[in-house]
Amino acid sequence: MKDLFVVIGGDAAGMSAASKAKREDPDREVIVFEKGEWVSYAACGMPYYVKGEVEELDDLVAVTAEAFREERDVDLRTGHEVVGIDTDAGSVTVEPDDGETFEQAYGDLLIGTGASAIEPPFDGLDLTGVFTIHDMDEADAIESYVAEHDPETAAIVGGGYVGVEMAEALDARGLDVSMYEMLPRTLQPFGEETARAVEDHLREQGVELHLETAVQGFVGDDSVESVRYEIDDGDGAETDDSDDSTTDDGGEAEADGDDHGATAAADLVIVGVGVAPNTALAEEAGIELGPTGAIATDDYGRTFDAADGSTLEHVYAAGDCAEADNVVTGEPDHVPLALTANRAGRAIGATVGGDPTQTGGTAGTAIVKAFDLGAARTGLIDEEVAREAGFDPVSVTIDAPTRPHYYPGGAKLTVTLVADADSARVLGASVVGRDGVKRIDTVATAITGEFTVAELQNTDLAYAPPFSPVWDPILTAAKVLRGRMEDD
Amino acid sequence: MKDLFVVIGGDAAGMSAASKAKREDPDREVIVFEKGEWVSYAACGMPYYVKGEVEELDDLVAVTAEAFREERDVDLRTGHEVVGIDTDAGSVTVEPDDGETFEQAYGDLLIGTGASAIEPPFDGLDLTGVFTIHDMDEADAIESYVAEHDPETAAIVGGGYVGVEMAEALDARGLDVSMYEMLPRTLQPFGEETARAVEDHLREQGVELHLETAVQGFVGDDSVESVRYEIDDGDGAETDDSDDSTTDDGGEAEADGDDHGATAAADLVIVGVGVAPNTALAEEAGIELGPTGAIATDDYGRTFDAADGSTLEHVYAAGDCAEADNVVTGEPDHVPLALTANRAGRAIGATVGGDPTQTGGTAGTAIVKAFDLGAARTGLIDEEVAREAGFDPVSVTIDAPTRPHYYPGGAKLTVTLVADADSARVLGASVVGRDGVKRIDTVATAITGEFTVAELQNTDLAYAPPFSPVWDPILTAAKVLRGRMEDD
Repeated sequence: MKDLFVVIGGDAAGMSAASKAKREDPDREVIVFEKGEWVSYAACGMPYYVKGEVEELDDLVAVTAEAFREERDVDLRTGHEVVGIDTDAGSVTVEPDDGETFEQAYGDLLIGTGASAIEPPFDGLDLTGVFTIHDMDEADAIESYVAEHDPETAAIVGGGYVGVEMAEALDARGLDVSMYEMLPRTLQPFGEETARAVEDHLREQGVELHLETAVQGFVGDDSVESVRYEIDDGDGAETDDSDDSTTDDGGEAEADGDDHGATAAADLVIVGVGVAPNTALAEEAGIELGPTGAIATDDYGRTFDAADGSTLEHVYAAGDCAEADNVVTGEPDHVPLALTANRAGRAIGATVGGDPTQTGGTAGTAIVKAFDLGAARTGLIDEEVAREAGFDPVSVTIDAPTRPHYYPGGAKLTVTLVADADSARVLGASVVGRDGVKRIDTVATAITGEFTVAELQNTDLAYAPPFSPVWDPILTAAKVLRGRMEDD
Repeated sequence: MKDLFVVIGGDAAGMSAASKAKREDPDREVIVFEKGEWVSYAACGMPYYVKGEVEELDDLVAVTAEAFREERDVDLRTGHEVVGIDTDAGSVTVEPDDGETFEQAYGDLLIGTGASAIEPPFDGLDLTGVFTIHDMDEADAIESYVAEHDPETAAIVGGGYVGVEMAEALDARGLDVSMYEMLPRTLQPFGEETARAVEDHLREQGVELHLETAVQGFVGDDSVESVRYEIDDGDGAETDDSDDSTTDDGGEAEADGDDHGATAAADLVIVGVGVAPNTALAEEAGIELGPTGAIATDDYGRTFDAADGSTLEHVYAAGDCAEADNVVTGEPDHVPLALTANRAGRAIGATVGGDPTQTGGTAGTAIVKAFDLGAARTGLIDEEVAREAGFDPVSVTIDAPTRPHYYPGGAKLTVTLVADADSARVLGASVVGRDGVKRIDTVATAITGEFTVAELQNTDLAYAPPFSPVWDPILTAAKVLRGRMEDD
């Protein structure tokens, strides 16, 4: 039994690891315990199911449970929750939905417990019509609720990418959408310029934005009827940031007799204020958490004993519950995104299958569609974050066309490029526009290669009129940033 | 007068250098001698003018002669041909269209004489209706010829990217297009897989392809009426490669009594068999040409004395007439493309303006639109070329979607990725598909950063369903290639 590879969690990291381990070493037995019923699904596709662009929820499943079991020979046990890990004994405690709790010995263990949507202590969080969007059942429930209850107004709490994607989805379903964000801007990790462009576009599309606005809770009898939020009458930020021209009756705030509160109609609420890594199981087992609060891992995804810091040679963690090294800072980071999970899981599968493979770092690369705009980011953008990491950030923001002026179909791309003034090393970038936002990959690759701004400027990118101007917008940004750095 | 910066040639390299030198050092006098009338134009846009997508030829001019003179304070003299360079005296001999030949002393000199379309010794090259497409006047002439003579059949000689772009342009203008290529495939530098995909698509679009077919000449009285070409009846390649279903009356070959020749109707002919660097002026001045036949340059674009190999400190060369170092091989290469010219010119302008700047290398990155397909390449793809450069090439070709299966609008992207078996270094790539071919930039950046296949696989590229599958097609190619290399 010692040779068993046991995986906790049947999503991106876990199923990638299980599949790869079987391919590397078909004789090795692999068991996956998944507490729910869905496995290996594209969580990032859920907003598009709600929107109606993806017809069936099952379409989001990359590989079915049956295929894992029958084609890939993985012993996948859905409805099985792991409730304890004993790293000394090398075993886990498993609670099946049906049946007796049992112990399962492992040779190697992967913790892929994922992350959960954060649920702030809002009043009325349990009202019907209030949702997070953290798993497939929730996506299904939102879609059904829209279809069956025909809500007219939606409040989205949180202006991160889930919030932005859900705004688009619910607008497409005919709802009047309001968005509430505590911070002064949406899409915090994307930087100021990109966030502002997205916010302008959201308003153009009729989304009522409430920035620097703290939601207090949700009001209704059985079902939610309104959202109650704080009016910051000190600096007037709330009214400054809302655009009267896009305010409609459904979203109009009504002061309700309390100077510091207002309510707005909302018969559907999505709470998307971020996710937190599911670390309780690891923590209880004495496995070390890193500075980000997620499970600490080494280059191969192995975990550490919290008591003495020693490496737990046979206990791995990957995916949304685990840290990965940031390629710019070299420090542990927690970026719960699908590619990191897939890649780290796959690498761990290879390692336990006999081919030691590094899990790779993260550049924090992310991309989001907001109605007709795309926005993307990579590396370090926020100046404060960059300074904390020991850099002296300088940046430029430029507008450049994605095709030559004379060729049809191009669009303006706004590129923010950040570098370190001392070393001239490229630290990060953010882009926003209607076309060509995948160009962020060029910068993601450059920061992974530790390019200077001059090296990025001199990179030989592809040019022909149907695809790009002579100077790709990324190169133009590098050219301008380099000029600015020389002038300083 | 010693301080003058003199530029020979008013296109991409020359005008970039002139403009940048003036910005760096506004007090320095800059003279540009251009033998023609057009300056700073987008030659790559010419096929789209012929196609009718670009309305005015003037639209292709990035900066007008007037703007250079008035806004940028560049002493631009069109209609002035430089016919001699005396590097000892530091002067050039200039022949104006109107006026007396004169000598012009220089402090620094940039040779930006460009390249010319190769004109093989075909019979009938002087017939009306036979064109190359090497400059704006020629593009204008082709467009006018189509508009005025209403030709029905076009023969394109040469299956490079100019040929492919002109096939699309002339098809859009209603002509029946045949293409003749001496080699066994089109788009030679793009590799076998990409070329085959483009060829299949050209046939689908009704282009009659004649591969391994040598054109002998053009027949007609005053105007061209047909193209005469060799039939290689030894291996039947000509008939194998033509697709009966797309052959139409206009393009049908007729054996003309000679076993080894055939003619096909063609009342418009485009000869696009490549370009050769314009080096005569440099060569006569005793300036060294490199192994590729273009002008040899150092990292700052300076030339060498052919007699003793010493650096000519004040004589630079850039653009289509000059070499640039290949970032993969480190060896001189000749890739006459717009970005290389612009960037090297700009760097030389900075250098002579007092800010020494390296011109940068070339990855040989190129991209081309062929009707509904895009094709792109970077680095080393051809196995023989890679072996000659001292590598042991291994490659894979994969098909991957540009978006997840469940999200609308994606397309298949075929990626060929090449690496060195010994070092695992990525050497090059080629991609072809209806969407997402700018992804070649990721590989161009990776080869510039000397990434291994594993490093490319671990690069954190952007994922969200509207933009990419979790594993970007480039990452999938790296993943598969790495697997193959481990198995070997």
